[in-house]
Amino acid sequence: MPPPSTAVVWRSVGLTLRVVTVISLLVSLIIISTNTATLSSNFSRIEIRFQDVKAYRYVLATIVIGLVYSLLQTAFTIYHVTTGNRIAGDALYIFDFYGDKLISYLLATGTGAGFGVTVDLKDANSGTNTGIDKFFNKANAASSILLLAFIFTAISSVLSSLALPKKA
Amino acid sequence: MPPPSTAVVWRSVGLTLRVVTVISLLVSLIIISTNTATLSSNFSRIEIRFQDVKAYRYVLATIVIGLVYSLLQTAFTIYHVTTGNRIAGDALYIFDFYGDKLISYLLATGTGAGFGVTVDLKDANSGTNTGIDKFFNKANAASSILLLAFIFTAISSVLSSLALPKKA
Repeated sequence: MPPPSTAVVWRSVGLTLRVVTVISLLVSLIIISTNTATLSSNFSRIEIRFQDVKAYRYVLATIVIGLVYSLLQTAFTIYHVTTGNRIAGDALYIFDFYGDKLISYLLATGTGAGFGVTVDLKDANSGTNTGIDKFFNKANAASSILLLAFIFTAISSVLSSLALPKKA
Repeated sequence: MPPPSTAVVWRSVGLTLRVVTVISLLVSLIIISTNTATLSSNFSRIEIRFQDVKAYRYVLATIVIGLVYSLLQTAFTIYHVTTGNRIAGDALYIFDFYGDKLISYLLATGTGAGFGVTVDLKDANSGTNTGIDKFFNKANAASSILLLAFIFTAISSVLSSLALPKKA
């Protein structure tokens, strides 16, 4: 059996990146969208959901858009790896180039927003309640996994930039 | 006088992008670093500075790093436009490619952090004091101008990606 060609190796790297991006975004989506906390005092119970923090709604939006894009790219890449051809031919290299750039920037702003709002809201509420601490810790976990997804997409963007001159 | 060549036009576009990036980052730096508010009640006066919001320290750091990089790139581009040669020759195209990518991602996270923390802290403190409203409005202004600087750097990144195959 001959060793795989360089092109096949790069396609497999590309596919692996798409798959780990999809998994990271899915995990981040589940963590942030199920994040709730109940703050109870002697007199009342207050429910806090992720929607109550506006920045988390933006984070969720970037995750959902990133997920749709990454699922689409995973499908395109599987087609490429299995058939050796690209859907839409060489035009797809241009779509990859601008798509990866746009989506990686979007995920970068989402990551910044997630960490940015959490660090200061957690500070402002520290010590008031263990429920709220857990709420912000889960938000930090979701942001950390979103950071991973952003890094994977940024690497995809480097690869699609380097692949562009070969085809465009 | 003959019309300028395409290469000269693109160099001028590149230089213009660097200069407007430097100007935007400088304005954003001044706004965020001078942002203070004094909250006075009948009994006390509390001074709030940008350092009190941890996310703003991160925003400031991204602005400073972006500014150093953009000043360096402005100098390189002026040299290129005036002499027709590039410092360090073709290796600089690779520096442009990775540098623009890295710095534009950094500015994207800074923009996300700036807007993300401001929207929710402003909400949490709305109506309590006009001083604090002004404080967060100035933070939003700084974030908006940082957003512009990020977009300029992202465009530079597209140009340096497209320029890479010609030289590398």
